[in-house]
Amino acid sequence: MSLTSEDMADFFTLRTVSWDNGRVKMIDQTALPNRFSYVVYRTPEQVAAAIKTMVVRGAPAIGVAAAMGLALAAQRSKANRLPDLFRDMESSAALLRSTRPTAVNLFWGIDRVMGKARAASSVREAKEEVAAEVKVMEEEDVEVNRKLGRAGADLIRDGDTVLTQCNAGALATVGYGTALGVVRAAVEQGKLIKVLVPETRPALQGARLTAFELARDRIPCTLIADTAVGHMLSLGRVDRVIVGADRITRDGYVFNKIGTYQEAVLAKRHGVPFHPAAPRSTFDLTRTHEQVTIEERGTEEVVLIRGKRIAPKGVPVSNPAFDMTPPELVTSMITERGLIGIPFEENITRLMS
Amino acid sequence: MSLTSEDMADFFTLRTVSWDNGRVKMIDQTALPNRFSYVVYRTPEQVAAAIKTMVVRGAPAIGVAAAMGLALAAQRSKANRLPDLFRDMESSAALLRSTRPTAVNLFWGIDRVMGKARAASSVREAKEEVAAEVKVMEEEDVEVNRKLGRAGADLIRDGDTVLTQCNAGALATVGYGTALGVVRAAVEQGKLIKVLVPETRPALQGARLTAFELARDRIPCTLIADTAVGHMLSLGRVDRVIVGADRITRDGYVFNKIGTYQEAVLAKRHGVPFHPAAPRSTFDLTRTHEQVTIEERGTEEVVLIRGKRIAPKGVPVSNPAFDMTPPELVTSMITERGLIGIPFEENITRLMS
Repeated sequence: MSLTSEDMADFFTLRTVSWDNGRVKMIDQTALPNRFSYVVYRTPEQVAAAIKTMVVRGAPAIGVAAAMGLALAAQRSKANRLPDLFRDMESSAALLRSTRPTAVNLFWGIDRVMGKARAASSVREAKEEVAAEVKVMEEEDVEVNRKLGRAGADLIRDGDTVLTQCNAGALATVGYGTALGVVRAAVEQGKLIKVLVPETRPALQGARLTAFELARDRIPCTLIADTAVGHMLSLGRVDRVIVGADRITRDGYVFNKIGTYQEAVLAKRHGVPFHPAAPRSTFDLTRTHEQVTIEERGTEEVVLIRGKRIAPKGVPVSNPAFDMTPPELVTSMITERGLIGIPFEENITRLMS
Repeated sequence: MSLTSEDMADFFTLRTVSWDNGRVKMIDQTALPNRFSYVVYRTPEQVAAAIKTMVVRGAPAIGVAAAMGLALAAQRSKANRLPDLFRDMESSAALLRSTRPTAVNLFWGIDRVMGKARAASSVREAKEEVAAEVKVMEEEDVEVNRKLGRAGADLIRDGDTVLTQCNAGALATVGYGTALGVVRAAVEQGKLIKVLVPETRPALQGARLTAFELARDRIPCTLIADTAVGHMLSLGRVDRVIVGADRITRDGYVFNKIGTYQEAVLAKRHGVPFHPAAPRSTFDLTRTHEQVTIEERGTEEVVLIRGKRIAPKGVPVSNPAFDMTPPELVTSMITERGLIGIPFEENITRLMS
């Protein structure tokens, strides 16, 4: 990694996605941890491709990125009348919506920007409002994560080891993180915390991203293969499981990175509390768990690692990107509005409406 | 892979390890699936290194390989008197015993060859007996696996999907396999079986070896990331779990490749039967589970995949190679002497003594 000491100093304010004078700037997460670099996009098509190929990933981050992609569409539109502007924006919104089906934040971000445009009374006002809104969303994301972090930090005792999954950190959000935001907030309270990081195949977000950002923040972590999760729990090496979420339905089901469900089952067996940490934008109050699509990604993600083949050519592969954890395995949910406990359906409706 | 059609035809008789006129011949499993090749060893030191670096792996295969390594030591000894021969052999036995601590077959193979030597009345007789014994062990291994396969095959219904872990196939034995031997025997009975293969990080034996040997045998399989095991079980896509074992203690605890324990927990949750398949040589009648050492392997196995770095430099890693499944998660054990059911401690002693 080619990091300056200045980069190291300002970790908490480093932005995964940001709106930069009408351009969208992102950390290129596909190159991590080997290379730390930024990419800049000027069109909604570029942003859509970045979401699809996981240059940017993580539910809150893709929510903001999609919103910014749509803001680029507004900005680039040659429309003179509002209906024409809306038509241009809807066309880009459809493209952005088609990138990834599971994280609800993507749809939330797009809807929020479209709503802002539709409330305007002129094309010029719409463009200005939309640009202002995505900047607000960017700032809000960090603020929300800090609040969420504080709400969860009280659960963690000094000396705890937290097991996570994938990357629900600064790199999955605009900054600070959800699950890792809770860890950061506990560290800010002066607690000594260790994080156990499963590498999270196939895309290796644990090994590539979580280990990277924890090392930068000097938060102690240990990397394990995904196969070692149960063993570590059976040895009593985990005090608490905290993960992110891509969508939490109103009936309390948690959709998150593949591998989360088995962590939750194993945590239950060993009496270890399990918490998804997610902002309001991850809650889907209109759907129950039967109505969610789990994305199936390409074969290459499994059989090629950094370009190297690890399985015979032509072997059939199943590559679901997410799984579903039922509410019975959840201890409580950590949000910026506080903890949500059982009964989840009732409390989600009450706290999140 | 550079396979001739002849290789394809004789799959079931292909030998992972064999004694070839006083040399030990092995398939180089580190090169699979990209290259299929043999290596030939003439010294016990070479065989010990091959076991340590996983040129040969799988409990039954390393049992036979270690026995053959010790036979090389006998053959190369310049001793004129039996005590000197035993001293030479014990020195190589110590080296071979130090390669890998968990699979009991390794110790079983060495003890069997030492016992044969000690029963001889001359150096010449000892050398001949030892060479004959390892050839017997080689043939026995395949015969035992075929018996074990038939004992397990009746459990499997036509159309079943079997979930496995790691490679407990022909490549983990001299030939035919244990867990995959059961699958092969069911296929020989005319049943249509599908195998769900977790890639089995860190060493990827599922992706590299199991997918390879099933493809060669034209047995349908689907490769998944280790993170997808729970999700597949939750979707009802698995009818039965069959895995190998590196050691089964007399109190019924199953030590096998890391990731096995979590499969067993998940299988239990979803009401799917879970079976270790292992020959007599994998049972340790002298020890209980507290007395077994779980091998911790190097960091590189996790952070480098085929030479490519997937995690930041210097990140701490924990890399246990095996885990322990308690008897309460086991439906029954498949052996060449038939199925072993509960109460395991009693039945293991009865059937395996």
